[in-house]
Amino acid sequence: MKHKRSPLAPKKPAVLKPVRGVQLATLATGLRYVGRDDLLLVTMPRGTSVAGVFTQSSAAAAPVGWCRLLLKDKKARALLVNAGNANAATGKAGLALLEESVRAVALETGCNPAEVFIASTGIIGRPLPKKALANFVPAIAKKLKPDAANWAKAARAIMTTDTFAKMVSRKVSIGGKNVTLSAFGKGSGMIAPNMATLLAFVFTDAAVDAKALQAMMDVSADKSFNSITVDGDTSTNDTLLVFATGGAGNEKIIRSDSKDGRVFAKALEEVLIELALLVVRDGEGAQKLVTIDVTGAVNDKAARVHALTIANSPLVKTAIAGEDANWGRLLMAAGRSGEKLNLKKFKVAIGGFTICKNGGQIKNYDETPVAKHMKGRDIHIALDVGMGKGKARVWTCDLTHGYIDINGSYRS
Amino acid sequence: MKHKRSPLAPKKPAVLKPVRGVQLATLATGLRYVGRDDLLLVTMPRGTSVAGVFTQSSAAAAPVGWCRLLLKDKKARALLVNAGNANAATGKAGLALLEESVRAVALETGCNPAEVFIASTGIIGRPLPKKALANFVPAIAKKLKPDAANWAKAARAIMTTDTFAKMVSRKVSIGGKNVTLSAFGKGSGMIAPNMATLLAFVFTDAAVDAKALQAMMDVSADKSFNSITVDGDTSTNDTLLVFATGGAGNEKIIRSDSKDGRVFAKALEEVLIELALLVVRDGEGAQKLVTIDVTGAVNDKAARVHALTIANSPLVKTAIAGEDANWGRLLMAAGRSGEKLNLKKFKVAIGGFTICKNGGQIKNYDETPVAKHMKGRDIHIALDVGMGKGKARVWTCDLTHGYIDINGSYRS
Repeated sequence: MKHKRSPLAPKKPAVLKPVRGVQLATLATGLRYVGRDDLLLVTMPRGTSVAGVFTQSSAAAAPVGWCRLLLKDKKARALLVNAGNANAATGKAGLALLEESVRAVALETGCNPAEVFIASTGIIGRPLPKKALANFVPAIAKKLKPDAANWAKAARAIMTTDTFAKMVSRKVSIGGKNVTLSAFGKGSGMIAPNMATLLAFVFTDAAVDAKALQAMMDVSADKSFNSITVDGDTSTNDTLLVFATGGAGNEKIIRSDSKDGRVFAKALEEVLIELALLVVRDGEGAQKLVTIDVTGAVNDKAARVHALTIANSPLVKTAIAGEDANWGRLLMAAGRSGEKLNLKKFKVAIGGFTICKNGGQIKNYDETPVAKHMKGRDIHIALDVGMGKGKARVWTCDLTHGYIDINGSYRS
Repeated sequence: MKHKRSPLAPKKPAVLKPVRGVQLATLATGLRYVGRDDLLLVTMPRGTSVAGVFTQSSAAAAPVGWCRLLLKDKKARALLVNAGNANAATGKAGLALLEESVRAVALETGCNPAEVFIASTGIIGRPLPKKALANFVPAIAKKLKPDAANWAKAARAIMTTDTFAKMVSRKVSIGGKNVTLSAFGKGSGMIAPNMATLLAFVFTDAAVDAKALQAMMDVSADKSFNSITVDGDTSTNDTLLVFATGGAGNEKIIRSDSKDGRVFAKALEEVLIELALLVVRDGEGAQKLVTIDVTGAVNDKAARVHALTIANSPLVKTAIAGEDANWGRLLMAAGRSGEKLNLKKFKVAIGGFTICKNGGQIKNYDETPVAKHMKGRDIHIALDVGMGKGKARVWTCDLTHGYIDINGSYRS
């Protein structure tokens, strides 16, 4: 079942700039999809450092466990990604399959198996045929190229219910050297901020120490992928990896708070936020991108809980889908979040128009401009819960018939 | 907007048996609905004891605060309920309105204002005209009657998006006396187990001490209304009240663990579970009633968290709507619940058919009987998370286009 391109997709997709030392190839395995590439292999030069953030699910898939293990060494030479089958809840057979794939990639690319990262996305719990992926490794390895065309193909090959490929590219100057960051990701449903809710890969030619890279990644992930939600469902396979090849020739960044570290961290954060927003823009069935700002909470953490409860509320999301400025549901959701609010000081604004303050609707409230805002593609909601100075921003999308269509028939 | 009667509604609705001493009246105020009663007044004899459980929302509506206050005295003489406006987030004006209503009922029925319970349901945050409800009290008081016909009208008058009236009646013998319990409730969306997620009222002529009544209520509420969910959204107005008039003439039940206490507690629990299930059966857009049993958790509380996470997962609920036995999503939801599971011992059965054990799909799995079960109205899901002996049962419904239709246009 193919779904229409999201109306929130960027009019003009970004072009991924090649990153020195990175080669990519894609292949159609036919294991689930017909007539499209669904396997991706990426190789990177010796000395590439890596950092990652993963799903917090206690039912994490086999590839997630493998990547976590590899992060102890912080070295990467290859990444193999398949779309269509998550290799989750697949027991010992799933683990054997993973090991076969790793061995095949190591053999074919001449690297250590402990430098081969694996990520999978697709149906959970469906067994894969034996050697399903390993068998394709020799063929895909022959196609490896550094070209921009292969970068674009890579972004498409990892899609499942995504309606457009998600790509972000940036150039920054670090210590007088030109540094490139190119990233792609997939994700559309089963998106919740319990890290990292999808697959996303960032490649850069900056030279960055793996420890500093991980520290920058943790901070940026919180502001990006940990601040988005489509349906509150956390996947078993969420994987966010950043690879730094060092090909740019800058002096290696050892500390995230050095001058160069701050420049790189800022670029990384921008790339991750942009990529995360592309995921929300492709939220299953999404017709509107919703930004939720909560202020006045006891602290930032409480503000985030309020904001995410609103962002995950089916009643808030269906009201937005119906272009209904039903602000009472915002109060309902904030009220059930488990975090405190002051009913006498509560404020609500939609699209910049104040609707409620001091706990009740303002006098002579005119819904006209708010109703107009609700008809747009970009919805802005601001709440002040009247308790303190904590604040948070999260992003979500509306809940529409499209979500039901897509998810009632995903396996068929 | 009127919605079609839920296909899960009972073929033959229960008939509410009158309860000695209880009189009821309904009236059409025209404040929100046209051509239907939307105001309910109930009076009870002197000496009626009362117990209650309420929403845990920190944005609880004015009537909830009022009822909580009254429960300190544990005496009830009247109950006024309106449908269409929740009197929530209405600030000082909402409080004034409530006080006017209470005074009007006390005056009209000759009781103490501290014995007048109030409940409201409907749109949150919309101001009501001044004296909106108080003005109707003299007229509605004139219509008070103990007849069965008025009981049925009462159940209908408190409906909002409900597609059928929810009524449960029981007779039990306590100490040789015939005791009646008659209950009605409303609720369809904004249903989550954070107590009590809707309006529900139980009336009985049993003589029960208010303290014992509250103790029995707390236990029964956990097994009924705290074990259901439609959308995970907790309302600002949830109110569950039980009134015991004492008209049956039984020796007053002082302890919930006495012989009579146990008989009454069992009847109360049965009534509340049946009423709670009627709410799920009328879940907005529901096409299927889903029972979820979780076993093998660290403890009962953990089992409940697993079960409710599954019950609230949009991906699980849309799969059920699509009649898709996508059991991987059950694992996903249990995995993200925050409670532990043992991936190597995880078991899943749907409709009594084992699909997964030891963390993976069973050999030679035949989906045919499971697919057949998924096409029915009653879906049964069983998970064993392989950690211990904790267990829990919760109920939910599927997530369909109907939910979106109803909630995208609720205020219009």
